[in-house]
Amino acid sequence: MTVMEEMGAKAKIASRCLLTAGETKNDALKAIAKALRDNADKIMAANKIDLDNGVQNGLSAALLDRLKLDRTRIDGIADGVLEVAALPDPVGTVISGSTRPNGLQITKVRVPLGVIGIIFEARPNVTADAAVLCLKSGNAVILRGGKEAINSNKCITSIMQDAIAGVGLDRHAVQLVEDTSRQSSIELMELTEYLDVLIPRGGKGLIQAVVKNAKVPVIETGAGNCHVYVDESADIDMAANIIYNAKTSRPSVCNAIETILVHEAAAEKALPVIKARLDEKQVELRGCEKTRAILGDSIVPATESDWETEYGDYILAVKVVASLEEATEHIARYSTGHSECIVTQNYQNAKRFTATVDSAAVYVNASTRFTDGGMFGLGAEIGISTQKLHARGPMGLNELTSMKFIIEGDGQIR
Amino acid sequence: MTVMEEMGAKAKIASRCLLTAGETKNDALKAIAKALRDNADKIMAANKIDLDNGVQNGLSAALLDRLKLDRTRIDGIADGVLEVAALPDPVGTVISGSTRPNGLQITKVRVPLGVIGIIFEARPNVTADAAVLCLKSGNAVILRGGKEAINSNKCITSIMQDAIAGVGLDRHAVQLVEDTSRQSSIELMELTEYLDVLIPRGGKGLIQAVVKNAKVPVIETGAGNCHVYVDESADIDMAANIIYNAKTSRPSVCNAIETILVHEAAAEKALPVIKARLDEKQVELRGCEKTRAILGDSIVPATESDWETEYGDYILAVKVVASLEEATEHIARYSTGHSECIVTQNYQNAKRFTATVDSAAVYVNASTRFTDGGMFGLGAEIGISTQKLHARGPMGLNELTSMKFIIEGDGQIR
Repeated sequence: MTVMEEMGAKAKIASRCLLTAGETKNDALKAIAKALRDNADKIMAANKIDLDNGVQNGLSAALLDRLKLDRTRIDGIADGVLEVAALPDPVGTVISGSTRPNGLQITKVRVPLGVIGIIFEARPNVTADAAVLCLKSGNAVILRGGKEAINSNKCITSIMQDAIAGVGLDRHAVQLVEDTSRQSSIELMELTEYLDVLIPRGGKGLIQAVVKNAKVPVIETGAGNCHVYVDESADIDMAANIIYNAKTSRPSVCNAIETILVHEAAAEKALPVIKARLDEKQVELRGCEKTRAILGDSIVPATESDWETEYGDYILAVKVVASLEEATEHIARYSTGHSECIVTQNYQNAKRFTATVDSAAVYVNASTRFTDGGMFGLGAEIGISTQKLHARGPMGLNELTSMKFIIEGDGQIR
Repeated sequence: MTVMEEMGAKAKIASRCLLTAGETKNDALKAIAKALRDNADKIMAANKIDLDNGVQNGLSAALLDRLKLDRTRIDGIADGVLEVAALPDPVGTVISGSTRPNGLQITKVRVPLGVIGIIFEARPNVTADAAVLCLKSGNAVILRGGKEAINSNKCITSIMQDAIAGVGLDRHAVQLVEDTSRQSSIELMELTEYLDVLIPRGGKGLIQAVVKNAKVPVIETGAGNCHVYVDESADIDMAANIIYNAKTSRPSVCNAIETILVHEAAAEKALPVIKARLDEKQVELRGCEKTRAILGDSIVPATESDWETEYGDYILAVKVVASLEEATEHIARYSTGHSECIVTQNYQNAKRFTATVDSAAVYVNASTRFTDGGMFGLGAEIGISTQKLHARGPMGLNELTSMKFIIEGDGQIR
């Protein structure tokens, strides 16, 4: 057995105990929250090693900031753990049930998935966030974080393991892959015997690498080439307001927009208003020919690659379209299926847009920035799925479960 | 673009029309049923070529029988199509919904998956069965059947395509891969740009090859190493009756049992009764040492491989266990997670068994042979999933769908 297979086997054993752990899972979460606070100094000391290594290895200021854990951030992580503890337990929920004509009583109940793998980058807060969501939903988890955060991750994991063992659960419910080589990542992606699902959390490169190489089932998260379509009948101030919010409130996140599509009958009036709002944040516009005809030659001409790009920055592509159909065709072609919005006052157009746009979240007259587990009322989220299998959109605790059928009879045969 | 990519692109376009096809999908199904009956002679002529080739290539009598289509079987297929037409349309079902504190109305609705690939073996009836389930649930489908049935499959597919086009839908909603080389199968497994899911239907070898090689998401179906555990308190006649049914009513199917586990306190009384029933069908028993001590040396000794094997035949492994825990441990180790049963009169033991056995279907006092879409009231099934992601157990029309969030607002920003 390789080290990874041994971790898998231990995780599987731990996952069996979690099946019936009930309220003890919440005891574990509360113990974790307390232990994280009690050991804040230890965590910061481990984190200091990572930060020093980061400086030595020339990490950018932004990356160093993501990596950093101070007392406030550790408190924030602990608060987040308690919030998850307060959520209802998805395990054991009866999804549906029936009594068949032959008297068999069939109940469909929610059960944990089993063993979940999480591959993530240099954010040590994910170590605790992801672990407690898995634990709460009755799953064992194998964490594989980036090498930049390895000392922080080891420290946080060992604190969590002690807390879990302290309430009488199997400490291997949470494990960290300590080998941060590329090889360990591949071994995790191929751990088909033990892993029920692998969830990558991080940038596009990481997610694509996992989707391409994994032999275990993967849930793809986070790619967001999102659109706002401004319909002929749109309230122009509302459109400008939504676009301003969806582009500039946090440009780096996946639910921020990258392209707007404006109906040609509205463009002449709407584009200058939209541009004026975006100018407040110096957003660079890249426009089609019709856009430039209205806004002037100072607008950078958009090319094919602009329609495809998730800028994650203060840049917005702009296209004037002849119809709602041209807008939905454009979205079908270029969208990553995350979040799209129509701004309209027309009832039929709203209905047509929501029926024909095939994305995880389709909005009428609201900012795409709401695509988020907390905003949708799921309580917490492990990521936003952009695939259609198993989970789509914000993934909460329910999305970390499977189900089983329980069939009760009194001797029925077929 | 390769031929396969062209098929994928056409399927994707067809899938977009199906999103809003509504009742026209049922018109298509009714037209397909009629066309299959009207063209029965043509189908039988094409099937004759496959049968002649099969004889020439030395196919077994069993395989030739599976391959064969006569008027009765074609009528059966057409009846099945009408049954699917009569089922409720899963698309558009509201799964849940809420109004958030900020006034956003969020609705979670069922939508088609998009494009489904089906890889199957030499059963031409699957061509129509699988296609209509996909069509009913609003999905385009790419079928890749075995070379033994290629002439039958081509004929059935072209009849379905004409029927689909006849009601005004895109004929590429159903397509058949005409190249039956190994290469075409691999290309389909790697068609990540167009395929939302790939479902293999067939034997263990096919399914394992797909799980191992596919880059697109796969739903694993059909592996069934199923168990019956006879508890200390079991009604022995009921146990014998359930075991007889679960083993002998159709030994080749995935919901038939392969091993029984008998509590040692019940074994002396139960085993001879069980053996007497199974002797009616000359079932070969392979027993552990304790089993052989009770039933005699004529019982073949069971080895490790017996606990692992899905016989699909009139063979049954028998193990005497010291406790319910030993039974559930054995199941956790060897089961494929399909269907397991406890026969018991003890309430607590029934509850412990259903809580701790992690299989798609867990039975109390009923035959595992009921694990089936029809028997569970799903109306029809595309297969029985033995994985935990997306779908588990019998997969009906709902399991061929995804969902999306529709969010309606009046200008909300975050």
